[in-house]
Amino acid sequence: MSVDEQLRAMRRELEALRSEVGLQADVHAVRTLQFKYGYYMDKCLFAEVIDLFAEDAVLYFLNGIFHGKRGARRLYGGGLGLDGPAYGVLFEHILAQDIVDVSPDRKTAKGRFRCFLQGGVHASKQDAPPRIPAQFLEAGIYENEYAKEDGVWKIRLFDYRIVYQARLEQGWAHAGLEPLIVSPYATLYPENPGGPDEFRPDPPRWPHTFIMPFHYPHPVTGKLVPPVG
Amino acid sequence: MSVDEQLRAMRRELEALRSEVGLQADVHAVRTLQFKYGYYMDKCLFAEVIDLFAEDAVLYFLNGIFHGKRGARRLYGGGLGLDGPAYGVLFEHILAQDIVDVSPDRKTAKGRFRCFLQGGVHASKQDAPPRIPAQFLEAGIYENEYAKEDGVWKIRLFDYRIVYQARLEQGWAHAGLEPLIVSPYATLYPENPGGPDEFRPDPPRWPHTFIMPFHYPHPVTGKLVPPVG
Amino acid sequence: MSVDEQLRAMRRELEALRSEVGLQADVHAVRTLQFKYGYYMDKCLFAEVIDLFAEDAVLYFLNGIFHGKRGARRLYGGGLGLDGPAYGVLFEHILAQDIVDVSPDRKTAKGRFRCFLQGGVHASKQDAPPRIPAQFLEAGIYENEYAKEDGVWKIRLFDYRIVYQARLEQGWAHAGLEPLIVSPYATLYPENPGGPDEFRPDPPRWPHTFIMPFHYPHPVTGKLVPPVG
Repeated sequence: MSVDEQLRAMRRELEALRSEVGLQADVHAVRTLQFKYGYYMDKCLFAEVIDLFAEDAVLYFLNGIFHGKRGARRLYGGGLGLDGPAYGVLFEHILAQDIVDVSPDRKTAKGRFRCFLQGGVHASKQDAPPRIPAQFLEAGIYENEYAKEDGVWKIRLFDYRIVYQARLEQGWAHAGLEPLIVSPYATLYPENPGGPDEFRPDPPRWPHTFIMPFHYPHPVTGKLVPPVG
Repeated sequence: MSVDEQLRAMRRELEALRSEVGLQADVHAVRTLQFKYGYYMDKCLFAEVIDLFAEDAVLYFLNGIFHGKRGARRLYGGGLGLDGPAYGVLFEHILAQDIVDVSPDRKTAKGRFRCFLQGGVHASKQDAPPRIPAQFLEAGIYENEYAKEDGVWKIRLFDYRIVYQARLEQGWAHAGLEPLIVSPYATLYPENPGGPDEFRPDPPRWPHTFIMPFHYPHPVTGKLVPPVG
Repeated sequence: MSVDEQLRAMRRELEALRSEVGLQADVHAVRTLQFKYGYYMDKCLFAEVIDLFAEDAVLYFLNGIFHGKRGARRLYGGGLGLDGPAYGVLFEHILAQDIVDVSPDRKTAKGRFRCFLQGGVHASKQDAPPRIPAQFLEAGIYENEYAKEDGVWKIRLFDYRIVYQARLEQGWAHAGLEPLIVSPYATLYPENPGGPDEFRPDPPRWPHTFIMPFHYPHPVTGKLVPPVG
């Protein structure tokens, strides 16, 4: 090969490597973005949570679909009357088990994460918000999508599914069929000022049968696992 | 340096960097492989779990050693009568704290992970599988090995040790000495159709004294921590 | 561009890429360093824990500040009489949700991690150490700093804050105001042989109101979240 050909070949290889390294940096950015979501949720830092979303985000929660940051403001708008850390209110969001896949063009990403939440209200609290059990556990799974806008990763699709909720004293074997704290939506926005823009079927929760769909194929066979429920 | 020498030097550096980047991609592949194992186990997706193993895998569980994917099929073969998600059956496998080390030739890897499992059967379930407590916790540690075959990472050595199991109502302070759900094997395959190929000593569990061996040396001193139990 | 100019340009790009890859390797080293801390703490491997610290480390715990590895030896010196794994003593440290940021010069790093601890003493234990409840949960957050010395990452600033502690039987809604196992320090070293070098205000814990300060700005807005408590 001539010197020119060698230079061109090396430049191509350098570009390919730079792209691979950039992709790994994107994985890191997306997983920490989601982890930061969890730390903000611990303390009801809803303004910070809402700022994690893209303008055109879509959020699924229970039987509701919320459109845009506007929708996010309603979803995190404090139906519980909370905004920021409060005496005697606990929402520890452990986030783990990240599966982040970035698209080849590095503009979008998908991520599966697990949440294990310890929540409740301390016995000494005088002005306890209604509907929060004294102490409860929640397990859930996120299957979110992310977009990079001007070099900054944001949450573009938020899809969190409660797997189970249980009062600590009773445990999951005795969990009721209705969710704790939250309820499926009966009316849409704007009739319901904190309601969703659209309905969707309420996805099944414990003790019902379901699989939160996997955004990725099986890592060895490459087959998709069909969703259930 | 001549242009030729400079080109050769840069090519060597590019190769070294490509190898380092490849190694980081391998770490990512192995940690997500193990995390995906956890998500499949949540839902008793045993066919998907078995497909994560290499043909020549070895699996350690309790006092048994299972050989090959054939052995994996017996270990995950549903002694509990489960296969896929079922009404009122919970096995939430939180996997975390990944320590993945890839060999310099990038063909094998070792990984330590922690598991925290919430399991049980809902009170409303009619046909509850025998032996699963209504609600229990399990902590455990994996010290697995992985192999890359045709560019695809698989589990080649599976070594999971239960640290403790406890009924939620009783807690770990009152855990019995016998494991929940599972029992040490009394007979080998094929006499026992779901049994192991070989015996090994049953490793100690809570409340006994042990350290699950670390596959890595101390990150500062480089010394190995001797195993206990 | 002349061949020489092309070679110089490519060398600069290669250097930039090498630096980026090195930074990703540093993130991996720091997160696994902290995870290894957790695995050693499980088993009261205090000699191994102390060796994770830099000579000039500073450790914050409750209302005390400990200086150097010497201080670390006092903090982990086994006020509980423990050293290594013991029959019927449980301290499962689940570490997760790592947010590691390495400085541009790659000599220091900051990391936020979550800890979820299951601790206790088995009912069958004869010589139970005093002060450890039979079974308790602890949630906490680390905001640590790390330094690279001769190519090896070490913990240089240790700042762990207990979020809540609770006896499993009572749960966090009924947690007392005084911490379990540990107590704020009343006297300094050397008067107190296991005491800190300095006092600081004891940071608030559950059920009080606080935010463990974030070492990083908001990932989208770039704004700092002001600390509380």
